[in-house]
Amino acid sequence: MSGDSVSPGRLYGVGVGPGDPELMTLKAVRRIGACPVVAYFCKRGTKGHARRIADGVITPDHIELPMVYPVTVELPPDHPDYGRQIEAFFDESAERIAAHLAAGRSVAALNEGDPFFYGSFMHLFLRLSTRFPTEVVPGVTSMVASASLLPRPLMLRDDVLSVIPGTLDEAALLRAITGAQACVVMKLGSNLPKVRRAIAAAGFTDRAWYVERASMEEQRVMPLRDAPDSAPYFSQIVIPGDGKRAEGVYE
Amino acid sequence: MSGDSVSPGRLYGVGVGPGDPELMTLKAVRRIGACPVVAYFCKRGTKGHARRIADGVITPDHIELPMVYPVTVELPPDHPDYGRQIEAFFDESAERIAAHLAAGRSVAALNEGDPFFYGSFMHLFLRLSTRFPTEVVPGVTSMVASASLLPRPLMLRDDVLSVIPGTLDEAALLRAITGAQACVVMKLGSNLPKVRRAIAAAGFTDRAWYVERASMEEQRVMPLRDAPDSAPYFSQIVIPGDGKRAEGVYE
Repeated sequence: MSGDSVSPGRLYGVGVGPGDPELMTLKAVRRIGACPVVAYFCKRGTKGHARRIADGVITPDHIELPMVYPVTVELPPDHPDYGRQIEAFFDESAERIAAHLAAGRSVAALNEGDPFFYGSFMHLFLRLSTRFPTEVVPGVTSMVASASLLPRPLMLRDDVLSVIPGTLDEAALLRAITGAQACVVMKLGSNLPKVRRAIAAAGFTDRAWYVERASMEEQRVMPLRDAPDSAPYFSQIVIPGDGKRAEGVYE
Repeated sequence: MSGDSVSPGRLYGVGVGPGDPELMTLKAVRRIGACPVVAYFCKRGTKGHARRIADGVITPDHIELPMVYPVTVELPPDHPDYGRQIEAFFDESAERIAAHLAAGRSVAALNEGDPFFYGSFMHLFLRLSTRFPTEVVPGVTSMVASASLLPRPLMLRDDVLSVIPGTLDEAALLRAITGAQACVVMKLGSNLPKVRRAIAAAGFTDRAWYVERASMEEQRVMPLRDAPDSAPYFSQIVIPGDGKRAEGVYE
């Protein structure tokens, strides 16, 4: 069979949810089962979070394509060499997937949570969606999984929700949090002390909850004031709205 | 058996996702299957959106508890009688569920999307969660289902996401949209013309997408400028972030 006669495979960005394998959707399970190739990002020496979630759905017949992040601990994320290394890694990963697609094999690229909600799939989507038929299978976000553990709804009535990456600098964090009603701060990890200061400065500490590894076996939930000093990447701060419009912000 | 000896049932707020039954989670399917009672909100003469999504999971053995919204079209939502009627309806609905729980029967209360993400389950949760063991099963939101249909990710890098109810007044909408990076406006319906003016005033029309009934058979996606003049409730406007911090907002 000549390469020209092969119709290309389809790329699926599959959201596998926040951690509990039962929070995968029926569609995610079906798409993964029907794709010959399963691709996922992971760190050297680990299986990868998304791959672990999908464990029960992946069979020996699947071709597994782990995409192992380059070791970057020796470079800070704002160093230009870090950006170049990571972009080159995403380029190379996309080409490995493209080779399967071009050969007619569909690829399920696993993504914890939802693919377009700060998902690593964005790096593949931006490189491949104009070259190959691409579909995103939405998933349960870690944000709603975290909120589901709290004693009150995330939003009441017409609360505006702000979703804020903890990677912002402290002034930007303070600005974003000050204007918020309901609020979730993602990507905590080593950003926790900085985020905590911004939340305190905004006067929101008493309304804030710390949620670690929502829906996983080791999940922990506590008021922010009781939270540890350091947080894993899979943790977030959730500030439920109170159903009142913020004075001076929404007239 | 005396009523005192019955241990109470559990209340599950079950997110059934945005519309496609395949976007239910494995956990939602299992919880609904294991509960003797299934409760859901609906309008008079309709089955209810959440109930329709769960159609394939509900059996003749289930006790169905439709909670039919009172006819309220003759009163505007800001009329005090509207608020009183609807609060009384939620009180009464909660008591109907409480009767099952007190009799030892667990109840799956269905909620389209996610129960804590502007979900109608909030009204039951606020009335029952301190009286009965309650668990929220998170679901795929219509927000990420809408975003999954677009040609670019909802958030890039450290974009802040603002989720804004279209029910806000026009000045509040403009204020919320102006400061946004990535942005989703929910609850459109008859609010569409007002939302559209606010998006135009914020200068975001060219980046905005209109998504109607995401993940349902009748789904439609188009640039906002091509959108119809009136929208169903199950529609939203999605403005993907561009990965750049807004000048003057986040220094």
